[in-house]
Amino acid sequence: MLQTKGYAAMTAKAALTPFSFERREVGPHDILITITHCGICHSDIHQARDGWGGSLFPMVPGHEIVGTVARIGAEVKTFKIGDRAGVGCFVDSCRNCSACKEGQEQYCEAGMLFTYSARDQAGQITQGGYSNQIVVDAQYALRIPQTLSAAGAAPLLCAGITTYSPLRHWGVGKYHKLAVVGLGGLGHMAVKIARALGTEVTVLSTSEKKRQDAMRLGANHFEITSQPGTLTKLQRHFDFILDTVSAPHDYTTLVNFLKTDGTLILVGAPEQPSPLEPFPLLLQRRRIAGSIIGGIRETQEMLDFCAEHKIESDVEVIPIQQVNEAYERVLKGDVRFRFVIDMASLR
Amino acid sequence: MLQTKGYAAMTAKAALTPFSFERREVGPHDILITITHCGICHSDIHQARDGWGGSLFPMVPGHEIVGTVARIGAEVKTFKIGDRAGVGCFVDSCRNCSACKEGQEQYCEAGMLFTYSARDQAGQITQGGYSNQIVVDAQYALRIPQTLSAAGAAPLLCAGITTYSPLRHWGVGKYHKLAVVGLGGLGHMAVKIARALGTEVTVLSTSEKKRQDAMRLGANHFEITSQPGTLTKLQRHFDFILDTVSAPHDYTTLVNFLKTDGTLILVGAPEQPSPLEPFPLLLQRRRIAGSIIGGIRETQEMLDFCAEHKIESDVEVIPIQQVNEAYERVLKGDVRFRFVIDMASLR
Repeated sequence: MLQTKGYAAMTAKAALTPFSFERREVGPHDILITITHCGICHSDIHQARDGWGGSLFPMVPGHEIVGTVARIGAEVKTFKIGDRAGVGCFVDSCRNCSACKEGQEQYCEAGMLFTYSARDQAGQITQGGYSNQIVVDAQYALRIPQTLSAAGAAPLLCAGITTYSPLRHWGVGKYHKLAVVGLGGLGHMAVKIARALGTEVTVLSTSEKKRQDAMRLGANHFEITSQPGTLTKLQRHFDFILDTVSAPHDYTTLVNFLKTDGTLILVGAPEQPSPLEPFPLLLQRRRIAGSIIGGIRETQEMLDFCAEHKIESDVEVIPIQQVNEAYERVLKGDVRFRFVIDMASLR
Repeated sequence: MLQTKGYAAMTAKAALTPFSFERREVGPHDILITITHCGICHSDIHQARDGWGGSLFPMVPGHEIVGTVARIGAEVKTFKIGDRAGVGCFVDSCRNCSACKEGQEQYCEAGMLFTYSARDQAGQITQGGYSNQIVVDAQYALRIPQTLSAAGAAPLLCAGITTYSPLRHWGVGKYHKLAVVGLGGLGHMAVKIARALGTEVTVLSTSEKKRQDAMRLGANHFEITSQPGTLTKLQRHFDFILDTVSAPHDYTTLVNFLKTDGTLILVGAPEQPSPLEPFPLLLQRRRIAGSIIGGIRETQEMLDFCAEHKIESDVEVIPIQQVNEAYERVLKGDVRFRFVIDMASLR
């Protein structure tokens, strides 16, 4: 077994503390990645605090993992030692269902194996990227293009693919008007990726504070939803709305901003339900859809797309000793736009 | 002006009583229809009791209208005196927006002109089909195929098109599994139409009572959602669910019955919102969509489809004097499956 260092929540709501644990030996299809950077995703906090239920402890969070290949199994042809590699939200899936066969492992019928807080086939709890190394089947690892910085690439493994996948699935492109709701880790990636796709992007916010950031990130427009007149101005305005907010909020207002046949795509995951009024859906045949991350192939496509379009996440790099403070700041929306842990600090 | 007799609600929540009113003269593009039958739609009750807000009184409800052409305007080429004709949920629209030009008048950007409880361009309140005659622009009237009975055809103008349109829009067909929720006026039409499209149909109900009806109507399966085991058995089972229930209810259970990329289509219009949990949408990229009625061309297509497949609504024909009692029975679900008023009783 491989002795590994990390930071873990020992129980729900406990602060993260230093934690030693074992990873499996490198099997014939595995690679060992020395982790250099790991992003802090809002869902790490949901899970470390058991906000969605079902969390497994002790928990080493982290599913925006970038590092360097340190060892490879005998059968691995796709990576060599020294390559940059990444791990996202899952590390395995059934490989047999139609979703897996289509490369949509995120919708695996047996359920994908999450990178942390899940139980693998050996009965072990998976542990994430707030740690110095990870062993993963090479089929579930990503190649990180050389032109991307490690810190700026890490959040692409979750925030990037979570926004890229629905934009691609629904064919959002040059002739569409897209609104992005919530300018955080997910939202700022959505703006960058949608602009690279040629889409006209409006950032919707509840406060003026985000205007400058929105425009700097490339948004075409910025609108404050609570302002009088906005409801009328934006009625039936958008083809798509990408809603990245992970707190309960009003869907009805957003639905009313959609054109006929428009889609409100939810990628944030509030812990509590929100009321839904059916009428605004009926009246213009509008839709509300959900989407999570993307498959391995599509995640690789997204990384290559980001390299081609020089898209990285805007990050604030911190040492791991500041992770608990960072969680509090994420909850207050006080980060532009993603914390990334420099794992050198762990040594 | 044309002196007209009907039954009206004079205020919200008042019982319907005999009412005399005037209709406009037959213009060059209009036809006058002598109404023989009019269906009672659940939405008549919502509106007569101002459940959705915005009702206009006095209100003669009724938008499932069938009758005989009694007079035609000078420019009308599409109907002749003696033809059977029908009127559905709307009698006009802007005719200029992209929706109208595509024949999707139900999504008219200026808003379609409802058959009753709306204000027309002359400032008059439109009045519906619980009456002996109606004047309508021939472009907004439907041809009723001769092989359909007048009483059995009337509910097609709302219940029929409301279920036909989404089944066609989403391409529901032979290789799909469809669930129909709610076996009332809408639901029983959905079963008949979907079976005629070759779809495998399951009726979902909260009680055993509806099983016999469901199977008689042609459903392939019947499942009780509240039964232990059903949640597991039907998880990820359906491509589409057509939800016809017009009372607030739990959407989350239904969403969990959908396969990846499946769609829950809402055609019932509860007066109150229901809580929506985003997670089940995200986890399998599922969708919730709304749909209302259909455009004139599609409504004609539906009528012709029903004639071809010998599909009529199952109706209980009543004299108009029983309309208030019928409303109470509709609210209790005590009708198989649609009341239709025989307008001969009005004379």
